[in-house]
Amino acid sequence: MPKSETLRASRRNVLKGVGIATVGASLAPAGMALAQGTPAAPSAAKGPKLLEMEGKAKLIVLGDKPLNAETPAEMTDDDVTPIDKFFIRNNGLVPDAPADAKAWKIKIDGEVEKPMEITLGDLMSRFPNVSYKMMLECGGNGRSFFSPEARGNQWTNGGAGCAEWTGVRLADVLKAAGVKPSAVYTGHYGADPHLSGDASKPAISRGVPIAKAMEPHTLIVFKMNGKDLPLIHGGPVRLIVPGWAGSSSAKWLTRIWVRDKQHDGPGMGGFSYRLAKTPIVPGSKGDPKDTVILEAMPVRAVISFPADGARLASRKLDLRGHAWAGENEVKTVDISTDYGVTWKPAKVDAPPNKYAWQRFTASLDLPSAGYYEVWAKATDSKGVTQPFVAGNWNPQGYGGNPINRIRVLIAS
Amino acid sequence: MPKSETLRASRRNVLKGVGIATVGASLAPAGMALAQGTPAAPSAAKGPKLLEMEGKAKLIVLGDKPLNAETPAEMTDDDVTPIDKFFIRNNGLVPDAPADAKAWKIKIDGEVEKPMEITLGDLMSRFPNVSYKMMLECGGNGRSFFSPEARGNQWTNGGAGCAEWTGVRLADVLKAAGVKPSAVYTGHYGADPHLSGDASKPAISRGVPIAKAMEPHTLIVFKMNGKDLPLIHGGPVRLIVPGWAGSSSAKWLTRIWVRDKQHDGPGMGGFSYRLAKTPIVPGSKGDPKDTVILEAMPVRAVISFPADGARLASRKLDLRGHAWAGENEVKTVDISTDYGVTWKPAKVDAPPNKYAWQRFTASLDLPSAGYYEVWAKATDSKGVTQPFVAGNWNPQGYGGNPINRIRVLIAS
Repeated sequence: MPKSETLRASRRNVLKGVGIATVGASLAPAGMALAQGTPAAPSAAKGPKLLEMEGKAKLIVLGDKPLNAETPAEMTDDDVTPIDKFFIRNNGLVPDAPADAKAWKIKIDGEVEKPMEITLGDLMSRFPNVSYKMMLECGGNGRSFFSPEARGNQWTNGGAGCAEWTGVRLADVLKAAGVKPSAVYTGHYGADPHLSGDASKPAISRGVPIAKAMEPHTLIVFKMNGKDLPLIHGGPVRLIVPGWAGSSSAKWLTRIWVRDKQHDGPGMGGFSYRLAKTPIVPGSKGDPKDTVILEAMPVRAVISFPADGARLASRKLDLRGHAWAGENEVKTVDISTDYGVTWKPAKVDAPPNKYAWQRFTASLDLPSAGYYEVWAKATDSKGVTQPFVAGNWNPQGYGGNPINRIRVLIAS
Repeated sequence: MPKSETLRASRRNVLKGVGIATVGASLAPAGMALAQGTPAAPSAAKGPKLLEMEGKAKLIVLGDKPLNAETPAEMTDDDVTPIDKFFIRNNGLVPDAPADAKAWKIKIDGEVEKPMEITLGDLMSRFPNVSYKMMLECGGNGRSFFSPEARGNQWTNGGAGCAEWTGVRLADVLKAAGVKPSAVYTGHYGADPHLSGDASKPAISRGVPIAKAMEPHTLIVFKMNGKDLPLIHGGPVRLIVPGWAGSSSAKWLTRIWVRDKQHDGPGMGGFSYRLAKTPIVPGSKGDPKDTVILEAMPVRAVISFPADGARLASRKLDLRGHAWAGENEVKTVDISTDYGVTWKPAKVDAPPNKYAWQRFTASLDLPSAGYYEVWAKATDSKGVTQPFVAGNWNPQGYGGNPINRIRVLIAS
């Protein structure tokens, strides 16, 4: 179904005056405002900065140092996100690639009976290899929708992708090491140097409750879409803690420290990956004491076809997109073309496995030529749906998952 | 129920740093942003300009020439809008008050068997006098919610009020004049000079289809809330065409011209009081040929208590407001305090008569201290509800009726 010809065709069909280079969030020309100016896109009169990297598509660069780049919505149309279209999120520097990936060492220590140091080669041969299609999503995905602006990379909805990951279960490895009853939390360490390059400075180290670590979809991963895990995506080996803020899924994995208390590495404290416990005044300073850890990501639907700003020849519109919901399944996706007055259910496919995104499709028949916004709203298996705006403001802008809105112009 | 003590108390309770002078749309301090920055209020670091006029409350001045002033939401809490709180909308200059109101003359001509010129005194004694509580609403009410900005006074929701109007039925007068089968439309004329003061320049003259003119609630009015109609509100005599754009309700009425075709006076053509026939790109130029006349006003709910920006001592909140829906009745009002994820029905009172606004009340129990937005959404008897943003952009910004949003801070 997701044909790259279709995508290219749609990109050719965007409103006049916008060249093919300015893809993504800024497809629509300046005059084609979203009603009430949702800050849905990096403001870009000349278009956003596009990634130029071998093996990667022209993602939208949100930051250079560290490098962070998101996937424009119309590039998320594949059932499984290709490596070249997969978003890039770094906290520190990218380490050098090892000469011998199989010799890469991972240490398991802390609250275990038999601390171990195991090479990637041994890991691959000693434990069952499993493959799942699973979401990986930046904890700050949707941050740009907050007003006033929250600190950090201004992700729209493109800090998320669903690849097929192959690895071994973290649970199998931890069981082999013998998890003690005192185990409460994990602490994850990677080989990426601190952004300053100063080896004495601590790099990000996050972790998860032991139950999530033992969840059978939490993997130590060495293949992405059947290929060796690329360096930029954490190769040769990383964690995938699916459905949770991506920062838990340490890249360039070197150590799992099993803790007898909540992990306290860099990235666990202050306002990092934490939500306000009770709602605070937008733009206020907040107090780190009044926060809770961001764990599972919230429900979200993203329209992948047509592209925002598409000029369409027909009033008949076959819409496509993906939806996901952290620990939960997406039950319904509803579409509105009249600013939320009426809604029509989309068809939502079952996920191929837990933690995969779900395809939704809808056939729309717009009442006339002209300008429309098309809105998509997902609801999960717990009945939780997306808000209409990003509420619950917090200083670093986590949990922003307002309903997705694109603009289309139906030619007369 | 609407106690001015309560209102004053609420105004005293607004967030610190905002004085009592800056009432209304800008109660909340600069930092207390509405999520995703709905342009809900005239931007006002120092607060809006307040009306200083004998017999009038401190309305929010939207324009000086002509004078236009809206009622802040927390001043719309009365069952019947008092004269002092009633919004002011002018197109031209305010004429001089007549020395003898009863001698004021109104001409009925055009497609009638017996053209007439009748004094106000004769009108009052010759035809049955009736009283109704009815909405009067500026056609541009809600204009400020459009993005990009539309031309004209930037009304929030305060270009509307519900007074008790006393007058005679226009239908009775037209019947007395003998409406010909050729009658199609009315044209209304008032004594207000053109804004330039140049008597040779035509002042606004709008009209309505003959069926609406014959509707038993369409009145020639000379009393407002039991008092002689004040000059600023069109006294000594005006039309009230309830539920429709206020510009049809000519002030200082001098003539009803019954036409054999749609009226073509100033205010009927171009983009004036006209909506886009099919949706156009926001901010585009538009084409007057692709427009239709704005007739009935859309469904709308406005929270009158608490005030936007109120600081409240308790998590228990007794909310109040009014809702109305042009030609229709309001069936439901729903309240959300979580950005539209969940909704709770408010209690909606029946209107005292057709075209009156309807009181809604709700008891909320907010889950914690902190910052909340409270949203109100009305749905009419036809099942039409308010959109979440002002869609269907048009160059003069008519029909903007997004759901109402206020901010409150629950003290810990």
